[in-house]
Amino acid sequence: MHIASDTRTRAEEVMARCRKLATFSEDYGSIRRTFLSPPMRDCYHEIAHWMEHLDMQVRIDAAGNLRGFYAATQSHAPRLLLGSHLDTVPNAGAYDGVLGVVLAISLLEALDGRKLAYGIEVVGFSEEEGVRFGVPFIGSRALVGRLDDELLKVQDARGISVQKAIEEFGLNPAQMPDACVTKEYLGYVEFHIEQGPVLEKLGLPIAVVDSIAGQTRLQMTFFGRGNHAGTTPMDLRHDSLAGAAEFISAVERLAGKIQGLVATVGQVEAKPGATNVIAARTRLTLDIRHKSDPTRTQAVDDLVEQAGEIAKRRGLTMEWKSMLDQRAVPMDSLLVDEIARAMEATGCAPHRMMSGAGHDAMILAEKIPAAMIFLRSPAGISHDPAESVAVEDVEKAIECGLHLLDQLASSSILHERMCRA
Amino acid sequence: MHIASDTRTRAEEVMARCRKLATFSEDYGSIRRTFLSPPMRDCYHEIAHWMEHLDMQVRIDAAGNLRGFYAATQSHAPRLLLGSHLDTVPNAGAYDGVLGVVLAISLLEALDGRKLAYGIEVVGFSEEEGVRFGVPFIGSRALVGRLDDELLKVQDARGISVQKAIEEFGLNPAQMPDACVTKEYLGYVEFHIEQGPVLEKLGLPIAVVDSIAGQTRLQMTFFGRGNHAGTTPMDLRHDSLAGAAEFISAVERLAGKIQGLVATVGQVEAKPGATNVIAARTRLTLDIRHKSDPTRTQAVDDLVEQAGEIAKRRGLTMEWKSMLDQRAVPMDSLLVDEIARAMEATGCAPHRMMSGAGHDAMILAEKIPAAMIFLRSPAGISHDPAESVAVEDVEKAIECGLHLLDQLASSSILHERMCRA
Repeated sequence: MHIASDTRTRAEEVMARCRKLATFSEDYGSIRRTFLSPPMRDCYHEIAHWMEHLDMQVRIDAAGNLRGFYAATQSHAPRLLLGSHLDTVPNAGAYDGVLGVVLAISLLEALDGRKLAYGIEVVGFSEEEGVRFGVPFIGSRALVGRLDDELLKVQDARGISVQKAIEEFGLNPAQMPDACVTKEYLGYVEFHIEQGPVLEKLGLPIAVVDSIAGQTRLQMTFFGRGNHAGTTPMDLRHDSLAGAAEFISAVERLAGKIQGLVATVGQVEAKPGATNVIAARTRLTLDIRHKSDPTRTQAVDDLVEQAGEIAKRRGLTMEWKSMLDQRAVPMDSLLVDEIARAMEATGCAPHRMMSGAGHDAMILAEKIPAAMIFLRSPAGISHDPAESVAVEDVEKAIECGLHLLDQLASSSILHERMCRA
Repeated sequence: MHIASDTRTRAEEVMARCRKLATFSEDYGSIRRTFLSPPMRDCYHEIAHWMEHLDMQVRIDAAGNLRGFYAATQSHAPRLLLGSHLDTVPNAGAYDGVLGVVLAISLLEALDGRKLAYGIEVVGFSEEEGVRFGVPFIGSRALVGRLDDELLKVQDARGISVQKAIEEFGLNPAQMPDACVTKEYLGYVEFHIEQGPVLEKLGLPIAVVDSIAGQTRLQMTFFGRGNHAGTTPMDLRHDSLAGAAEFISAVERLAGKIQGLVATVGQVEAKPGATNVIAARTRLTLDIRHKSDPTRTQAVDDLVEQAGEIAKRRGLTMEWKSMLDQRAVPMDSLLVDEIARAMEATGCAPHRMMSGAGHDAMILAEKIPAAMIFLRSPAGISHDPAESVAVEDVEKAIECGLHLLDQLASSSILHERMCRA
């Protein structure tokens, strides 16, 4: 195997490898790779091949996470975890998730055999997107001890449980405890595409993520009267869709006024849904995120109150229920500072930003220091075949990663962890 | 067979007969009776039985319309057409359509064998709702010579054409010309439930319809960008659903300002339709009606222009296409005046109103004078199992109908038609 020797070539190889992994798909002509599906095995095989070339110890843990260990200068040293997820959404792009795994391997290749004061474990999480079981983060949950019996029982659309899927792949769910991270872990660093337009807008190649937004998802239904569109005068209507439309505008208006808040109505369904019938009931979803939990919950409260007022004024009724209420997760400040320093050493502005999307780093942060590095997403596109990343930005990410590895070897973070371990 | 002798008993029998016809359904536990379906045959059988008791000549024309003829005092007299449709929507109520047929028969029963200077033909149209073939008014189109080869070829969901359905019912499409109305027809009068809340709001039992609203239906799609709901700041969004919501509010606002205009967005579909994805494209339908065609088309133009402005301001694109553009149909003014006079003779305010819904009378008006009498719809409900009509209002309709039949026997309308025939 040829290993690239300069950063540009390395970056090009990272991209080629991502495109290679994209060929392992459940669907012909588009990318879909869900938890422990057959192409996932091919994907593991390919990555394990790269890892073994680096003399890494490779294993697949009981949650199906691919894990390769690159030894330290001494045994019993703490270890740094690098990686991201290997699963994809349907009709995916080639970089979401896998880029973080491939980049980690590229960093180890760039060490060219050199060992550090800490070991490096590269993890390719088996599941992050939540496609197969409707539950995200199955892979990273295992590392923090949260892949419990309840989750093992969850079934996919064909009635196959997580437990069964694990067994059918040839793994043993009883060995789940061996998947957990322990005190010997120095931290977790995840490279990931931004999946948004902010870095492109700012003209920056990379950023350090200092927090992952808290998130509320709710379902709301307006109930009105499903009368005839031709025979019901405007002033005698109780149009649930007109009420929902007024609410959707209110959501947009509120979010526009609060710095950093994003609020989205992405789903709407008006029933009976006929051209000539006033909508009797309209259901919609609301997704609200902010890095401050009080700001987010205040926005949720305000919007629910506004929805109630809209309904009352229009002679509608309104019901809502919360589907998700997830607190914001700050990234580890020392790790964020080290990454910012590595960015400066790379010649990049040390831009700090919030992640609006959830990531494995959010789960790992429950147990070990975690942080992320975002790479600019051209046109902000992700979860789409048009998803991409610029080779120049991958170069910057590699340079930044290499600075970070060196910094960590002499940082107070490492020292502290070594004392604690 | 017992025939009721006073109006109240007659009205109660009308309602009982409607409920009896409601038992002939394609669906168990709810009413659905589409064009020439098996329960339609039972329905014809039942009504024909009532007609034959009145010595009416009964036939089913080539379009499947049930037609019974009650002779005049002399042969070659003009004939008045009374009736409505016998088909229903899915999950229908018991009165929409059939009430007009059953009421017509009740009027003839009330004549108690008395003949008039004109004959009376009662028609039960085979198809008005457009459910089976997606094309409404198949029955009444036959009476004006518009059930043509093109319409005969239209297929239902199972691939059966109108022609084939007619043949399978045992009828001969080649005899379609015999279904047409001719100069000997004095006019068409249709009793129908209002299907709206206006008469209830006004406290009136019945009204004469002086025009049927013109109607525009269009489909409109807003195209935006389907980005991640968590990672796309509000000011970098091109949210097609937020644009559509603004438009829905604009529709409601415009219609509220123009007397008699009704405008409805009844269908909306946001894609991809996920909680955490900004809607990339949102399609909606718009239904606009008014008795004045210029008012309606001006409103359509205004709204399309507003939609374009909303799209432009938000960095969206907008496409639209017209699905229906149907002119308003005035009812025959002489017939409307006679009905108004009959209403006064009944002790009812001669309220004139527009029909926002389309009806067979609109089709018949192409060839012969046509008018309608609306009965109050409790709570404005129709096309729903809760659809109803008050027995007191049916009484008023019967009284009004009997006054009308007598008036017509001595009216200038009849005289003119007799001269022309």
